[in-house]
Amino acid sequence: MNSPDRFDHFEGDMVSEARLLASIQSRMTAGEDVHVGPGDDAAVLARPSGPLIVSVDQCVEGLHFLPDTDLDSIGRKAVRRAAGDLAAMAASPLGLVATALLPSRFTQREALRLYESIRTEAESINCPLVGGDTSVWRKDLQGGLHLSVTVLGFTHHPVLRSTAQLGDRVCVTGPLGGSFVSGRHLSPPVRIREAMQLRDELKVELHAMIDVSDGLGKDALAIAMASRVRLHLHRESIPCHPGTSWKDALQDGEDHELLFTVSPQADLSVIPFPTFEIGTVVGGQPGVELVDENGGRTEVGHLGWNHGA
Amino acid sequence: MNSPDRFDHFEGDMVSEARLLASIQSRMTAGEDVHVGPGDDAAVLARPSGPLIVSVDQCVEGLHFLPDTDLDSIGRKAVRRAAGDLAAMAASPLGLVATALLPSRFTQREALRLYESIRTEAESINCPLVGGDTSVWRKDLQGGLHLSVTVLGFTHHPVLRSTAQLGDRVCVTGPLGGSFVSGRHLSPPVRIREAMQLRDELKVELHAMIDVSDGLGKDALAIAMASRVRLHLHRESIPCHPGTSWKDALQDGEDHELLFTVSPQADLSVIPFPTFEIGTVVGGQPGVELVDENGGRTEVGHLGWNHGA
Repeated sequence: MNSPDRFDHFEGDMVSEARLLASIQSRMTAGEDVHVGPGDDAAVLARPSGPLIVSVDQCVEGLHFLPDTDLDSIGRKAVRRAAGDLAAMAASPLGLVATALLPSRFTQREALRLYESIRTEAESINCPLVGGDTSVWRKDLQGGLHLSVTVLGFTHHPVLRSTAQLGDRVCVTGPLGGSFVSGRHLSPPVRIREAMQLRDELKVELHAMIDVSDGLGKDALAIAMASRVRLHLHRESIPCHPGTSWKDALQDGEDHELLFTVSPQADLSVIPFPTFEIGTVVGGQPGVELVDENGGRTEVGHLGWNHGA
Repeated sequence: MNSPDRFDHFEGDMVSEARLLASIQSRMTAGEDVHVGPGDDAAVLARPSGPLIVSVDQCVEGLHFLPDTDLDSIGRKAVRRAAGDLAAMAASPLGLVATALLPSRFTQREALRLYESIRTEAESINCPLVGGDTSVWRKDLQGGLHLSVTVLGFTHHPVLRSTAQLGDRVCVTGPLGGSFVSGRHLSPPVRIREAMQLRDELKVELHAMIDVSDGLGKDALAIAMASRVRLHLHRESIPCHPGTSWKDALQDGEDHELLFTVSPQADLSVIPFPTFEIGTVVGGQPGVELVDENGGRTEVGHLGWNHGA
């Protein structure tokens, strides 16, 4: 009656979830906030000091990385993508759980290397890997590698997309554009620390925030739509990576810098890292306009919004 | 420079994540503990009343369901599988996040139906869907449907696998065996309420618990190994579904009943649902033995442990 080839959640000949788990457990550094780590039915974390922040992201072969990408980069990218959502809420990290769906050709060594890259990256951002689940594609299915990472954090003052205010200044934490062609998409910046500093320094003057994952055009539009405002972005002020243009910055994704709005009075000089002021929040029909040096205006909220829809 | 066909996280012609989200948002019933639901960078939940419980599970086409399974059943199974881990810790549910990786042939209607089944099932167990992520396989990859569900809960008294004690009685909340051949694996029981009742009624006399997902043999062994004890299971006491035997109960998985140990003094008559006493916790080398009506003993911890390893 047992049908391990039909629905058992672990059927690989080459990869043992039990051995993976044992290896992960042996390498974990115990944090006092992790009461129970990987190995029981669920993880147990200390009660958070404020409201709970949770977000999940996927990292899929062929979509988020190419088949020949090294495993260290894949694990790192999966963690950093998800971490971007904690940063975007200005949350303090608590921990994360990850799933891996492995191609049937995977070896134990490869599976372990992938988890090691997730574990070490998670530890490096103070968001320890506390649990997970591993499955292996059936041999007759040529499915690619798939990861999901769920991040947990907390904050008394989550910074939403929907709370931009008229007159706000629009800022970004770093240069944008060209993340895929440059390979930067595999190791995007993690702005959790910067987001907590913005939150702690600017307090109520930090109004709205998002991380730039789908391109500045689309992500600015997400703030505009949620807050029911217009964003004017000054073309010449947009920081771009060398070799990229404002158009790449607007269109390309996976930069994972923070896009935020602050009150006109906010003193950005107290922020201990560079920020770039790139626009203002104005009234009118929700949308995003690019303003050039001659005052010419172009609607750009659709840029980056070129998939699905 | 933009390469939506290479790494954008949403490229399907047929499915729009924005429209999915709008539909999910419109159908959500606001819970006072959900401060921010789907649609921002992350969800915001009220600060939990105790330590945080988190677990993640996958539900993969070809492994956990067959390609012709209806979408309602797939969504339900994905939620219930993960919910089993909350039950196993005796946690009160807080909320869940889900990811879907959709075959490129999926239509908007199918995607919506899948999310609707997740949303309604999640609501029915008081564990609302508060966030998620959707991707679509590249058209040139014939990848199957993949779901992941991360469940969040809380409890001051998580019930672990590692805390069984010598002399404990071993109990289970319902009949086992034959979940796949019967189709029951698609709608396993959710024992969250029962687990909370066990926790609240038995208090410190409830020692260890796990949900039976990999077969009674393997899951009993998980308690034995974690607690460094032996479990004696009485063959004639094991409750089996009609048409199945104790061997199916030991070997088959995905029953999602609770297997727990209680002190010898525990008064099970206070429990407002049936429980089945099937064994005892004894000393010796960690393992699981089946004891027949003549006192004959067979090592059975390896049963159900037939994949990977």
